[in-house]
Amino acid sequence: MTDPNLEKFFNPESIAVIGASREEEKPGHVIFKILLENRKRGLLKARVYGVNPKADYILGEKIYPSVSAIPDNVDLAVIVVPANLVESAMEDLGKKGVRAAIVITAGFSEIGNVELERRVVDKAKKFGIRIMGPNCVGVFSAWSGVDTIFLPYTKVLGDGREVLSAPRPEKGYVALISQSGAVGTAALDYMSGEGIGLSHFISVGNKADVDEVELIEFLKNDPRTRVILLYVENIKEGRKFIDIVSEVTKEKPVIALKAGRTAAGKRAAASHTAAIAGVDEIYDAAFRRAGVIRANDIEELFDLAKAFVKQPPARGNRIGIITDGGGAGVMATDMAEMLGLRVPELKGEAREKLEELKDKGFLPKYSQLSNPVDLTGSATSEMFVESTRILLESDEVDAVVILALHQVPGIPDPVALAREIAGIAKNYDKPVVAVDTGWSETAILERREFDINGIPAYPTPERAVKSLAGLIRYGEYLSRKGVLDRYVEGILRLRARD
Amino acid sequence: MTDPNLEKFFNPESIAVIGASREEEKPGHVIFKILLENRKRGLLKARVYGVNPKADYILGEKIYPSVSAIPDNVDLAVIVVPANLVESAMEDLGKKGVRAAIVITAGFSEIGNVELERRVVDKAKKFGIRIMGPNCVGVFSAWSGVDTIFLPYTKVLGDGREVLSAPRPEKGYVALISQSGAVGTAALDYMSGEGIGLSHFISVGNKADVDEVELIEFLKNDPRTRVILLYVENIKEGRKFIDIVSEVTKEKPVIALKAGRTAAGKRAAASHTAAIAGVDEIYDAAFRRAGVIRANDIEELFDLAKAFVKQPPARGNRIGIITDGGGAGVMATDMAEMLGLRVPELKGEAREKLEELKDKGFLPKYSQLSNPVDLTGSATSEMFVESTRILLESDEVDAVVILALHQVPGIPDPVALAREIAGIAKNYDKPVVAVDTGWSETAILERREFDINGIPAYPTPERAVKSLAGLIRYGEYLSRKGVLDRYVEGILRLRARD
Repeated sequence: MTDPNLEKFFNPESIAVIGASREEEKPGHVIFKILLENRKRGLLKARVYGVNPKADYILGEKIYPSVSAIPDNVDLAVIVVPANLVESAMEDLGKKGVRAAIVITAGFSEIGNVELERRVVDKAKKFGIRIMGPNCVGVFSAWSGVDTIFLPYTKVLGDGREVLSAPRPEKGYVALISQSGAVGTAALDYMSGEGIGLSHFISVGNKADVDEVELIEFLKNDPRTRVILLYVENIKEGRKFIDIVSEVTKEKPVIALKAGRTAAGKRAAASHTAAIAGVDEIYDAAFRRAGVIRANDIEELFDLAKAFVKQPPARGNRIGIITDGGGAGVMATDMAEMLGLRVPELKGEAREKLEELKDKGFLPKYSQLSNPVDLTGSATSEMFVESTRILLESDEVDAVVILALHQVPGIPDPVALAREIAGIAKNYDKPVVAVDTGWSETAILERREFDINGIPAYPTPERAVKSLAGLIRYGEYLSRKGVLDRYVEGILRLRARD
Repeated sequence: MTDPNLEKFFNPESIAVIGASREEEKPGHVIFKILLENRKRGLLKARVYGVNPKADYILGEKIYPSVSAIPDNVDLAVIVVPANLVESAMEDLGKKGVRAAIVITAGFSEIGNVELERRVVDKAKKFGIRIMGPNCVGVFSAWSGVDTIFLPYTKVLGDGREVLSAPRPEKGYVALISQSGAVGTAALDYMSGEGIGLSHFISVGNKADVDEVELIEFLKNDPRTRVILLYVENIKEGRKFIDIVSEVTKEKPVIALKAGRTAAGKRAAASHTAAIAGVDEIYDAAFRRAGVIRANDIEELFDLAKAFVKQPPARGNRIGIITDGGGAGVMATDMAEMLGLRVPELKGEAREKLEELKDKGFLPKYSQLSNPVDLTGSATSEMFVESTRILLESDEVDAVVILALHQVPGIPDPVALAREIAGIAKNYDKPVVAVDTGWSETAILERREFDINGIPAYPTPERAVKSLAGLIRYGEYLSRKGVLDRYVEGILRLRARD
């Protein structure tokens, strides 16, 4: 059972900013301002209050000298006062009946002030207050508009240009828990650009109270969250992690990027979070036992997230590849084999159907149909559509990679092709991923069309195959746990609803 | 000594398109049109002639019934007539005195017509004609405007939008030799988007005559080419490759992506090029002996290209990392160690200088100075500049990674910071690479500013470190060959001139 107070971090009815500030650069100002703006825009339903004994009005809003002076219940407090004032702030919150506090303030265990942090936690425990942080960026919930990220959306450059600097991703189904605030905010920028929708971003900071395990358990029951991403440098209680997370992964995928893998990386991690990273092999084993998919770098973390949001896990490791560029097919095949997947030579009914289409002159005379199915530069949109259908029907492959390089003349409208392939894939429970290479307008439009129609699309064959490998590994895990069918049914139901 | 006729492929004074066509979709039309347009734009200096016995005018230009009817010398012929007519076309070219022919036409050894291909080559040899192809996309020389890529720049989508589809990269210093036409054109799209300038793109097709070895040797003396990229699925003469390429790599870097690494990948490669890929370990050894840097995927190929164009190779494997995000520093450190590089704990003068700056209050109280130098979220532009200078001065590191995540408030103008860091790096012969994460306007602008000022910038710490590892490996190779100093001097001279 997760603590019902956790819900208050994400869906509070009222928020108090303890340390709301008049100075534009300060977190206490930026956070207060963004919350007020979100409320004005109708995104945030929660009522917002500022607390600062030295101010009457900030941004035109009445400011309260203390939290006790607020004439309303307070569900969530955001604390930005100096470290030495946090303990007494906790006392005030407790008396007011606040049960959730995001402590943005730094200067605790991460710099050796272990005792101060312990006192703050003890005080909070006394009142049953749950703490996020300290030393964190806090929470951004795309659906409820809670946003304590103290980075303004834009920067004004020296030449006067105002440019988007800290974008927040759109509403979506991917949650991100990050031990590093910087990695977290960089990740949000990445997600915005890649068009990956967010449910909740949670920066856990020093994890003095709420940690990733409790959050993962909470997110299991969060209807907005379908995929849970985790950036960690250390996990304190490995046994608890395995016990709890292995229950979650039967229902929702958890994808982790664990930094501090090497000796020097661990030293770097220790110096900035005061956490002992531990032996990497132990994490590897723990992730495997817990059914957690491990990403090797930040790009792969989001590549996997895209794949997991809308595609089902695979029922086996045999992949079919359709391409209009032989070389791209070779690259995809190489990566598949290197990851332990199989690219079986097609021999059965699918092969017969394809050969028949070739004999009829529908597929090019020199197409290669063994897998990869290489339609060559003479490929047309119709050939892609038909071949996709045949591979999805076949019992010889469990997943399909579509390499539809847009340059060939026979694909006059790559965007329409993407839409059409997505329409077919929807009728099958095999995962499909797509590739178009490059950054031309056409390449970007084709990939985006795949993406918005539920087929994750990537700029290189290798990245597509790595993501598919994640779906295959997860399928194997769910199958071992005996819950693959149930999971696939669930994701197909969601897909039908979207 | 390379054949002087090779020059005619890239800098001809006149070009004949054998098989110029009226039909808009056909390669014989697209190529003729693009050449004419390049000439009108003043990009192509060569005179352009169309040959087609069945047409008098195409695109308003007089068409000749045969190459012999052209009242001018012809340096380069582009052949797009059907396969069965190529042999006699070669005879005509020979009599006219043409000595370079790009054979776009397919239908030769790649589909089993080995004998036909042999006859074409024999005919060409008789006259001393050099052949590129057959079954290739041909040549695009950004500096001379020669462009035989038969893909129109744009596509018109079903909804009427005209979108850029096959962009050609800007003029630059990277040459690309590709055995796959599709990979080649996809790569051009990639280079355009990443802002990587091109000297020559050469699609070698079946390599019936001119092969990658001869081209690499030719590019060694090409003043426009500083970095040579290679996409291959097989290399026919390994011994010759090692002998010749190892001479080239003492002067210019060669970076190779070799597909067909795994059993299934080799099968895929064989089916589309009729080439036996051979054992991957043998290629690995050959590349190593020849001083060729091997890329693992297409993204890495171009990441390396960016690094090699303007940065010198490193004199050792010790890297210094400066960051404003602890987590990003950990990721960079992990990747460095995994690649066998060192991230040494700073102990000497550099450390003293940094600690002094911290004592003075110039660096944040909680900054970590052991390496990674973690300036924390309190980092300012000035701190980055000063730390960069200290690490570049230090004899404890051979290369520097700048992780300047733009979000922190103390970097009000990330673009100006990029420019400033590049200005400092220019005064040292240590390689520097940079990172900013994400796809927001600010992230893109910061990376671009690094790029255009000669510091390759990447969207993830891992990609930056992998690229730097390439510069380190190449430095080790040049050092073993005793030519590192000479090479570094050369690149610094080029840098000063740019």
